Amino acid sequence: MMKAAIFGASGYTGQELTRILSAHPEVKLVAVTSRRFAGQKVPAVFPALQGLTSLTYQNATPSQICNLCDVVFLALPHGVSMEIAPEFIKAGKKVIDLSADYRLKDLKTYEMWYGKHSSAKFIKDAVYGIPELYRQKIKKTKFVANPGCYPTGIILGLAPALKKKLLDVTTVIADSVSGVSGAGREPLTGSLFCEVDGGFKAYKVGKHRHLPEIEQELNALAGKKFAISFTPHLLPVKRGILSTIYAKLKKDVSLEKLHALYSAFYTNEKFVRICPQGVYPNISSVCGSNYCDIGLAVDPRTKRIIIMAAIDNLVKGAAGQAVQNMNIICGFKEDAGLNVAPLFP
Amino acid sequence: MMKAAIFGASGYTGQELTRILSAHPEVKLVAVTSRRFAGQKVPAVFPALQGLTSLTYQNATPSQICNLCDVVFLALPHGVSMEIAPEFIKAGKKVIDLSADYRLKDLKTYEMWYGKHSSAKFIKDAVYGIPELYRQKIKKTKFVANPGCYPTGIILGLAPALKKKLLDVTTVIADSVSGVSGAGREPLTGSLFCEVDGGFKAYKVGKHRHLPEIEQELNALAGKKFAISFTPHLLPVKRGILSTIYAKLKKDVSLEKLHALYSAFYTNEKFVRICPQGVYPNISSVCGSNYCDIGLAVDPRTKRIIIMAAIDNLVKGAAGQAVQNMNIICGFKEDAGLNVAPLFP
Amino acid sequence: MMKAAIFGASGYTGQELTRILSAHPEVKLVAVTSRRFAGQKVPAVFPALQGLTSLTYQNATPSQICNLCDVVFLALPHGVSMEIAPEFIKAGKKVIDLSADYRLKDLKTYEMWYGKHSSAKFIKDAVYGIPELYRQKIKKTKFVANPGCYPTGIILGLAPALKKKLLDVTTVIADSVSGVSGAGREPLTGSLFCEVDGGFKAYKVGKHRHLPEIEQELNALAGKKFAISFTPHLLPVKRGILSTIYAKLKKDVSLEKLHALYSAFYTNEKFVRICPQGVYPNISSVCGSNYCDIGLAVDPRTKRIIIMAAIDNLVKGAAGQAVQNMNIICGFKEDAGLNVAPLFP
Amino acid sequence: MMKAAIFGASGYTGQELTRILSAHPEVKLVAVTSRRFAGQKVPAVFPALQGLTSLTYQNATPSQICNLCDVVFLALPHGVSMEIAPEFIKAGKKVIDLSADYRLKDLKTYEMWYGKHSSAKFIKDAVYGIPELYRQKIKKTKFVANPGCYPTGIILGLAPALKKKLLDVTTVIADSVSGVSGAGREPLTGSLFCEVDGGFKAYKVGKHRHLPEIEQELNALAGKKFAISFTPHLLPVKRGILSTIYAKLKKDVSLEKLHALYSAFYTNEKFVRICPQGVYPNISSVCGSNYCDIGLAVDPRTKRIIIMAAIDNLVKGAAGQAVQNMNIICGFKEDAGLNVAPLFP
Repeated sequence: MMKAAIFGASGYTGQELTRILSAHPEVKLVAVTSRRFAGQKVPAVFPALQGLTSLTYQNATPSQICNLCDVVFLALPHGVSMEIAPEFIKAGKKVIDLSADYRLKDLKTYEMWYGKHSSAKFIKDAVYGIPELYRQKIKKTKFVANPGCYPTGIILGLAPALKKKLLDVTTVIADSVSGVSGAGREPLTGSLFCEVDGGFKAYKVGKHRHLPEIEQELNALAGKKFAISFTPHLLPVKRGILSTIYAKLKKDVSLEKLHALYSAFYTNEKFVRICPQGVYPNISSVCGSNYCDIGLAVDPRTKRIIIMAAIDNLVKGAAGQAVQNMNIICGFKEDAGLNVAPLFP
Repeated sequence: MMKAAIFGASGYTGQELTRILSAHPEVKLVAVTSRRFAGQKVPAVFPALQGLTSLTYQNATPSQICNLCDVVFLALPHGVSMEIAPEFIKAGKKVIDLSADYRLKDLKTYEMWYGKHSSAKFIKDAVYGIPELYRQKIKKTKFVANPGCYPTGIILGLAPALKKKLLDVTTVIADSVSGVSGAGREPLTGSLFCEVDGGFKAYKVGKHRHLPEIEQELNALAGKKFAISFTPHLLPVKRGILSTIYAKLKKDVSLEKLHALYSAFYTNEKFVRICPQGVYPNISSVCGSNYCDIGLAVDPRTKRIIIMAAIDNLVKGAAGQAVQNMNIICGFKEDAGLNVAPLFP
Repeated sequence: MMKAAIFGASGYTGQELTRILSAHPEVKLVAVTSRRFAGQKVPAVFPALQGLTSLTYQNATPSQICNLCDVVFLALPHGVSMEIAPEFIKAGKKVIDLSADYRLKDLKTYEMWYGKHSSAKFIKDAVYGIPELYRQKIKKTKFVANPGCYPTGIILGLAPALKKKLLDVTTVIADSVSGVSGAGREPLTGSLFCEVDGGFKAYKVGKHRHLPEIEQELNALAGKKFAISFTPHLLPVKRGILSTIYAKLKKDVSLEKLHALYSAFYTNEKFVRICPQGVYPNISSVCGSNYCDIGLAVDPRTKRIIIMAAIDNLVKGAAGQAVQNMNIICGFKEDAGLNVAPLFP
Repeated sequence: MMKAAIFGASGYTGQELTRILSAHPEVKLVAVTSRRFAGQKVPAVFPALQGLTSLTYQNATPSQICNLCDVVFLALPHGVSMEIAPEFIKAGKKVIDLSADYRLKDLKTYEMWYGKHSSAKFIKDAVYGIPELYRQKIKKTKFVANPGCYPTGIILGLAPALKKKLLDVTTVIADSVSGVSGAGREPLTGSLFCEVDGGFKAYKVGKHRHLPEIEQELNALAGKKFAISFTPHLLPVKRGILSTIYAKLKKDVSLEKLHALYSAFYTNEKFVRICPQGVYPNISSVCGSNYCDIGLAVDPRTKRIIIMAAIDNLVKGAAGQAVQNMNIICGFKEDAGLNVAPLFP
């Protein structure tokens, strides 16, 4: 069994990793860290996990953890991962970083959006971990920068159309909604039940930190530089991101053709499901699973394509994709530990 | 006291009218009709209204109701209003029609989207009832076509920018979400709690019947013909519509200027509130009230303006606006019966 | 106009008072205090109130506020009210205290459940403010201890049966659920959307601080001492408390008789609505209103009566009842400012 | 592989069975029936299941299905199962009936609560399927009457205390709440999102059809006849039942002893988790899993025990327990296909 550890395991993403790895057929979870809950058993913090793990949160140093594990997941805020990752990298461990610290290839861009980087020299070693697009590179690395939640859906949604050069890229708009778990488990007023339930609003309009990450990847797919509009909204559900993406077509394309293109592009991808024509994805149909569901519409009146992509932000948007990346790196079956049906209703 | 009746009073919009009119200082509600609940007291169907009204639903003909009232509200599906309205119009009654039957000025467009019209000759008499834009016309009519819920927010959100000709109108996109009460009280599988809660999805992409209504009004405001993209989504809340509207600016405009323009445009409008700069509207801040809250952003990277407009679909998007229109027609204070603070949390 | 102030106005109860008093026909709200938000306008903290009040939160001392107002509402935590109230009492102001500090007549009981009392000598002056039971006393006082949210519903639900001595009082059980606003606006992990939504659990079983308050009042109504079981649960809604109350009947009583007794008991009480036989109260039917809805069942198999009482915890359970008490003290119409229909759906 | 079929597969319970059986390591799901959706692929009705099954709903007769399968699950309404089950029983198939038709051993009781029984002679052959209590009997049968959702939690919650004769059985009260999926997928007004969200109310007080089932089993456990009070409430969540159960202790028992008793009673039961002392179960901690979480409190003031039991009504309360029963009958590992962590948040 591969020995795995989670650094920063008491947030929602850390808990999701704990849940998935506790049941993973090839992995033994050996350590979970948390400063806030150090000394407490995992089920004392997350009663849902009673009987599934008996680990205790540790307030451990990287080197203490490094000795115990073959692979480490960093479920840490940006700015913290960059302090922790290097020790594991240098020790030759497999590292899946779920923070933003190694996603942006351009240091200047990183520092403009996130602040000073303290271990920038490792950025070039990190592979951006969307398996459906970069599987071969992931296979060969030990260090994955696991994508952000919003970027995952938007990139998977646009990839076929961009690679096929169907779109006027200056017209791309991503209008996204996210469930509240995306804001983490910090006790913030804005995440309180009474503030969120029954509400809906945009936030950080045109200013969300996932914007440069999305553009980096979309530009790479299109082979040219362009800017998009990206508006995130807070959705009163626990899990799920839906992005509704608009772009003008460079020339007429029928829905049939578009649907065929997308179906072919993802034909061997277990975790991307193209909805039948006329069906649009619902976040409740991917809840708890590693699927990305993609729906398509063509609006001939405005010559726009509308792409909708739904994921569970904690699974395909974070912990699930991280495990998928680990599976690839380690040569396990890519869906090991992820073979779970969505929970509906 | 003005005597009012509601035709089709047992849906959510009819209930909301009942609630508002029961407490209206200038109105006596004299009759409510419902085929499904005929013979039952209103509070037997809506226990929230116990003690507020003692009316009984009637299965009455238009002429029976016509004799009883000075003003009638038609809270009926399209296709039904057109059969009922004429009798009231001919009798010289004040008519507020909440269906789509008299909103579209172009008969062909109506019949393409909704089907055959049986009383088309009255279309030209109906005034499209957005008081903030058409108050003078409404004052002089007895027959108001009360706007649709999605159109209300989108039109109010775009009006200042369109009238000022700031926008490249070929780039307008309205991405909207609506609470479930917008789907009515019919027992449909898609409106069940278990189907909606925790979910989010687009529907009728590019094909929603409010599209021609929105375009009719936006074209009128801009003084030219253009098509927009409009994507409605189903939001797991009971009340509220938020539209996030995108358009390219024809030339650079600062957020300060834009904010000043909107503030000036709506300066005397009690029911339109412009959010402070950097604040975006939340549907939970208008819940239960007749307000339309508008927020603004400028994205200099893409030269786009992002306008967000929030309303309560049952109030400003239906029953509240209908009462506002009645108040204008009847010469009451425009906020009579509508002077209610939003219910938060 | 009566001049009113709110001490501790930035919690949910304080906000609700602000909302109600801003629209009250006899009152001018002159000051609102908040340490956390001092210097900010009310609508900057609660955007729903934009246009309804232009007050700014102050970090003021009691004496500063005392000079400005005729009546003060203390929407403070227990232990804080006791420090603030005396100054207003001594100055002869009308005081409505929404904390627990002056509700328990027995000092020892207070100190066992809440801790040291620093102004215990005023306890005897406070009138326990359930108007439906103690209206005459309230009329004659200037100092009201406004009841707790759970106690309000349970006391109103049991009063007729206890006064009529129908029950074996050793068998009384109150099983209650409360919406999350009851936990206040403090950013606690347990109040986060992701912790609450989709969940349901009991808390403080047999140990909630409202227990001695409930027992004090039930004992007074029954004219003898007895203990009850009280189990609160956290309900994933924003507003509302429902208590399902069980007790054995001393002798057989038919539902018809019981219903007639309750209807007679509350016959002149606008804010208590007895549901028709066979209908049970729903918190969504009182949402946003000052109503207490009571439903009744008799279980002949077990000789138990089941009483269900629903209130909006922020209105009849806090701010609304406080205003009702103020109205009585000041000689206003008892429903002034409270004449609002519940918001359904 | 064991060949399984589901009769009545398009309700929520049927869908849950489809989900679990599609991933079951020992089972091949060969047929699913539905009159309403006959001819449609499963994922056309439940998009969450795209890629997990390619079965098509059939409108098939029992004999058509009987030939295809080794085990059949009847996820049918009461009154329908009794028409379908006999054919499978006679053919020697394994039958798991999820309806109420064979749960009540006393025919008169059945007919009083449910109406005429058309295949009553098979009642005596059915084993009531709570594995934690009746595993040995289940092992030897081919015909299981799968318990109701409310009964499952209440029976598991009371079993240790009843068997140990700790309780005054005349004082037992079960106050229960259920998520909306318990009402099924029929499009009923009362199950609409707008009717349920933000609400909470009791229903069928003292009259729910699960009452005789609960009493039959509790009486059997206690070895004597007694009646209980049972009040179900509708909870605005999708999944989950929590029962808060009250009873007087015959003599003093400490929480420590009680906790030890329960822990010992269920010590080898994977699917029953006893919460640590002072921790109470939350339905969100069992969501999507086959667990029953039990919490305990002792109220020395009233000499009452309070037992709280939480399950997912669609899993341990229906489909999961049905699969658990099948596993036992077939000699599979008892947790085969059920080895799934709860989904939190």
